[in-house]
Amino acid sequence: MAQHAVPETHVLAIASHVTSGHVGNKTATFCMQSLGCEVDAIHTVNYSNHVGYRRFKGRKTPAEEVAELWEGLKNARLDTFDMMLSGYCPSAPVVQQVGKIARELKSRSDARPGSFFWVLDPVMGDNGRLYVAEDTVPVYKSLLDDADLILPNQFEAELLSGVKIHDLATMKQAIARLHEAHKTPHVLITSIRLPPTAASTPTTTDEDLSTSATLSVIGSTATSDFKPRLFRVTVPAIPIFFSGTGDMFASLMVARLREAAQEADLLNTASWRSPDSVAGPDLPLAKAAEKVLASMQAVLKDTANHYDAAAKRIQEELGNGQHGGAGVKTGEETEAIRHLNLTRAAEVRVVRNSQALREPPDVGAFEAQAVEVEAEGDASR
Amino acid sequence: MAQHAVPETHVLAIASHVTSGHVGNKTATFCMQSLGCEVDAIHTVNYSNHVGYRRFKGRKTPAEEVAELWEGLKNARLDTFDMMLSGYCPSAPVVQQVGKIARELKSRSDARPGSFFWVLDPVMGDNGRLYVAEDTVPVYKSLLDDADLILPNQFEAELLSGVKIHDLATMKQAIARLHEAHKTPHVLITSIRLPPTAASTPTTTDEDLSTSATLSVIGSTATSDFKPRLFRVTVPAIPIFFSGTGDMFASLMVARLREAAQEADLLNTASWRSPDSVAGPDLPLAKAAEKVLASMQAVLKDTANHYDAAAKRIQEELGNGQHGGAGVKTGEETEAIRHLNLTRAAEVRVVRNSQALREPPDVGAFEAQAVEVEAEGDASR
Repeated sequence: MAQHAVPETHVLAIASHVTSGHVGNKTATFCMQSLGCEVDAIHTVNYSNHVGYRRFKGRKTPAEEVAELWEGLKNARLDTFDMMLSGYCPSAPVVQQVGKIARELKSRSDARPGSFFWVLDPVMGDNGRLYVAEDTVPVYKSLLDDADLILPNQFEAELLSGVKIHDLATMKQAIARLHEAHKTPHVLITSIRLPPTAASTPTTTDEDLSTSATLSVIGSTATSDFKPRLFRVTVPAIPIFFSGTGDMFASLMVARLREAAQEADLLNTASWRSPDSVAGPDLPLAKAAEKVLASMQAVLKDTANHYDAAAKRIQEELGNGQHGGAGVKTGEETEAIRHLNLTRAAEVRVVRNSQALREPPDVGAFEAQAVEVEAEGDASR
Repeated sequence: MAQHAVPETHVLAIASHVTSGHVGNKTATFCMQSLGCEVDAIHTVNYSNHVGYRRFKGRKTPAEEVAELWEGLKNARLDTFDMMLSGYCPSAPVVQQVGKIARELKSRSDARPGSFFWVLDPVMGDNGRLYVAEDTVPVYKSLLDDADLILPNQFEAELLSGVKIHDLATMKQAIARLHEAHKTPHVLITSIRLPPTAASTPTTTDEDLSTSATLSVIGSTATSDFKPRLFRVTVPAIPIFFSGTGDMFASLMVARLREAAQEADLLNTASWRSPDSVAGPDLPLAKAAEKVLASMQAVLKDTANHYDAAAKRIQEELGNGQHGGAGVKTGEETEAIRHLNLTRAAEVRVVRNSQALREPPDVGAFEAQAVEVEAEGDASR
């Protein structure tokens, strides 16, 4: 009856909750449960919907309340987890509290290497803009020493590594810095946007990464001397802004990495690190990313189809004044309604596409590739 | 890709959230999502775990916060729902607020019959004991006029109908009272326990209902003159107390009833009520209950197997003093730990058994039966 590729996995998920739509724990919980993980969710905010709508109501969870729920789990002997996924936190004290919980779980696993794995999504900003308070950044930096896998986007990777990323060489430099300075075993950078240059070998060119037709993720598992082993997976880009894709990616990675680590017989190895003989594209991290991106591509394609149909309908209704409410709307009101309706139409259709989560279609099209970067000296040019 | 028997259904789910384990919205959200429903969850409490552990921490949601989240959904035009499922509320004001939301959604559907359907699980108590404040009971009674389907257990049905249920005739009387006095279109009574008597015809005897080997649910959809049309489904009993089975039942009923109503072409009929020509066992309510109970039986059987193994292990560990923590435990401590561990082992394994939710096995074994009750005069004896 119970047939799952992912072994039984108990995950503590700490992120936002929204009543409507798909971001944070709302998405992450369902994605991990769909792959058979038992998910215990602590919500860092409790909002009606995500803030991209520009209108929302609800409440941030105080750090004390996160601590209290953790205390409750401990009191009831429910504090045993195989993995933890931490995402958006509304304040530096909540980030600190999340770090405290992760360290407690981590320190207990010292005697049993590999028995606990922490995936940290350091949600701070995107496209050069912070969307958390500035005092959150140093707190995230202080957590890097204990995380097993971090999932920054390009901007967050710059903030955490101190390396400005403008080509593949600096990308590699940033990842190397994170491995070396913080001993972070696994790094995977999402949402990569590099300006077109010629600073790389033909295996993966910056052009590949920056065309509007494709998007890449680049990952690495540190070798025993904390050098990077890079791989990349490139996917066709969809020209719509979907919220929650980062949470979908992170949560599916949790489940698929556990599966891949089991397949590589690494579940009893600290941080599930592969022997040095394993090349970047053969890492469990790479194998997991392939499946995750195949699933996501299917979900996003279906979402995009629905979005296009909805956008057409919304445009027509607004033209006809059929957008609910009485009387003539001002231009500003019409625009606000248009934005709300389009934002809703862009909510990822993860629930109707759960089969694509369980059985990623066309995984072969998402094969991880090696990333060759010219001599280190090129990095700073 | 997206293949679901249940049509696209947007559900507002208002019930409890627990970080660990499976009760309330934690279970309900996953069950409905697994069947393809889009679920928007408002949490009435936010606890570390369910109270059956006897140790928990967390916070009840004030009624004002439930109202605020609803306001947030309205402001962002996210307040359109096909169905609503309401469960546990921690106080009378929260029940009142939930009723306010349901009535608002209901009144909007007046112009489009069948476009909104409210499933009310009037969580008040069980086995003759209230576990909510007494002032909650009249508030639930006041909601009955607007609910489309109510799912009381036997004790709650007594509280709501004012009829003491001690045999099949009084069961029918209670259901008739709910149909007549409150115009509640659909009633389904769960957890039926009747003392053995001979007050029924051979079709379904009270003995069938009360043996320790089986459990029954009895449901009815009112005819056009608000008379009951009864059916029952009997399932093998599992001698373990599982928390959250009520929430699993209610949430699966939401999805399966929508599916059955679509199959019967009732989605544009007020409250999805079948024509008078349809007999009890042929009602969409009965068809839905068959699938739901088949799914649940599979999930609970797997849970029971794991529970038995865990119970054996827990017993051995306690005997050997291997239950964590230092030093010799007092009898009281040992007993508390035993209770915590057994309660955890009884958490329903709904996530690992999601296939049984999607594809209920052996539905034929759960066929709805007619319930024939002797003349009404017998009811009061």
